[in-house]
Amino acid sequence: LKDYVVGLDIGGTKLAAGLFDLNLKEISFIKCDTEAFRGGQVVVENCKAIVHQVLEKSGISRDRVASIGISSPGPLDTHTGIVTYVETIGWKNVPIRSIMEEEFNVSVVLENDANAAALAENVRGAGEGTKNMIYITVSTGVGSGIILEKKLYRGSHDAAGEFGHICIVPGGRPCGCGNRGCLQSYASGTALANAARAGITAGENSAILLKAGGIPEKIHAFQVEEAAKENDAFAIKLWEEMGYHLGLGISILVQLFDPDRIVIGGGMSRAWDLFYGSMMESVRSNTYEVLSENLQVVPALLGDKAGVFGAATLGIAIV
Amino acid sequence: LKDYVVGLDIGGTKLAAGLFDLNLKEISFIKCDTEAFRGGQVVVENCKAIVHQVLEKSGISRDRVASIGISSPGPLDTHTGIVTYVETIGWKNVPIRSIMEEEFNVSVVLENDANAAALAENVRGAGEGTKNMIYITVSTGVGSGIILEKKLYRGSHDAAGEFGHICIVPGGRPCGCGNRGCLQSYASGTALANAARAGITAGENSAILLKAGGIPEKIHAFQVEEAAKENDAFAIKLWEEMGYHLGLGISILVQLFDPDRIVIGGGMSRAWDLFYGSMMESVRSNTYEVLSENLQVVPALLGDKAGVFGAATLGIAIV
Repeated sequence: LKDYVVGLDIGGTKLAAGLFDLNLKEISFIKCDTEAFRGGQVVVENCKAIVHQVLEKSGISRDRVASIGISSPGPLDTHTGIVTYVETIGWKNVPIRSIMEEEFNVSVVLENDANAAALAENVRGAGEGTKNMIYITVSTGVGSGIILEKKLYRGSHDAAGEFGHICIVPGGRPCGCGNRGCLQSYASGTALANAARAGITAGENSAILLKAGGIPEKIHAFQVEEAAKENDAFAIKLWEEMGYHLGLGISILVQLFDPDRIVIGGGMSRAWDLFYGSMMESVRSNTYEVLSENLQVVPALLGDKAGVFGAATLGIAIV
Repeated sequence: LKDYVVGLDIGGTKLAAGLFDLNLKEISFIKCDTEAFRGGQVVVENCKAIVHQVLEKSGISRDRVASIGISSPGPLDTHTGIVTYVETIGWKNVPIRSIMEEEFNVSVVLENDANAAALAENVRGAGEGTKNMIYITVSTGVGSGIILEKKLYRGSHDAAGEFGHICIVPGGRPCGCGNRGCLQSYASGTALANAARAGITAGENSAILLKAGGIPEKIHAFQVEEAAKENDAFAIKLWEEMGYHLGLGISILVQLFDPDRIVIGGGMSRAWDLFYGSMMESVRSNTYEVLSENLQVVPALLGDKAGVFGAATLGIAIV
């Protein structure tokens, strides 16, 4: 009897794996360090090891596992099961699907992390019960996963949902992708830290600098969050600007997709109260009233576990 | 035997109707004036009349008609079959579906014009053979119809595809919809005429003015087209700016939907060579290279007949 699946979530700093029954009930769950600093081959070995460990922990025999779902950073090819290139974990053209298929002798499905998290939030998180839902992850960068008619929408070349790289300010800030004015350059952890650094270097008086040990180069988004929560005016303004730009992008999603709900996850979403007001104001002033009235924009519910849940959901789908 | 369908296309100036067999082969086709100036009730009567006429012309007996598909300007409700409000034809909450059902005693399906045209281009026009395709119509205003996995995507409230009203210039030009910076305010017939008028009033030297009888208020997009084709520098610049802004919007579609193909119809698309170059330059500088490389942006093929074809396709789908 093959009545369990494994969900594996590959992240830049952590790996996580869960064993689930076919109703997506969690049997066991573990996390470990990715150890990316030891190189791509070690990360591959760690992926194998954590799946072995989660099976051991559960006490379920290996031959009862029907499939493994994997959530990984991209770009990757869901058809070939190959992760094309991920600098943070030292992977270049790693055929992680066939590697895991060989190791565990089961079917394996590979999906990018934003899509896996979107699916998870739709199946059992903040998007439960919705038909058309867009999941946005805002952390160092910005990504999204699109659920239409309750199914993952991947586009024609597995590249749909590049929300972080839609142009929201024509000719605006240069972005790491080579283009200009991308949403990610205005509404991400990196953008927030950059804006704080630039402002402080230009003479803004803010508690952020002290939190960074007086060294502008060491300013990080979490210090901007701390300062804003302590009522630092400049930090509050930076979060409001982030909300404004994120709202601009969301308004575009709403006008094009007319979704039931937008779910926002990722590290930055934890500072919800610091950007929600300005974000919604911006959504409202750039969409049709009839659409923004019916729209729900809510924080993600699954946090760290979204990747594992989503991967397991995909695993169940191929059983 | 019910083996024919009627497609009815309701436009601001023209009505068109076609009789088709169930393989979408055209049996007969006619057009007439909408006569909107005579009021909404006359338009309703004209809709009934043109369907009667296309049947007479074909010689096919009325009881062989299985269904009628209708393409209409919106906003409208596909579920109730009611056209909510269309100023140009004097309609407010017109239950056109039940009116036609009563008149012809067959099932009727109602769809907005951009969606109907999108479907038509996908089934037998410039988008034939594609899986994910977006149809853009650029005329007085700008609209779009989204085909995903070969099916019309309508969104959660029948409001997806409001491409003309995504914000591409934050805080930019005021738009008729009440918001600012909408694509339609930069890349439509109205926008082109406005920009020509503003430039000429501010002293631009251009052949456009002469074509408008020396009266800036009378400048219309078609004069800007004529002037550009005669190498008028200012007119050429206006078309290039339109292409740039349309390209900005298309780049957003590409990053979010990753489609196989974009199909552009509507009156403005006939001036293809005047904006294609600047549009594609703008698409390329605002999308991932891997996406713009694979992307096809092509002119619509069905012209005036798209609405009738799309309506008939929807009619066939409910047989």
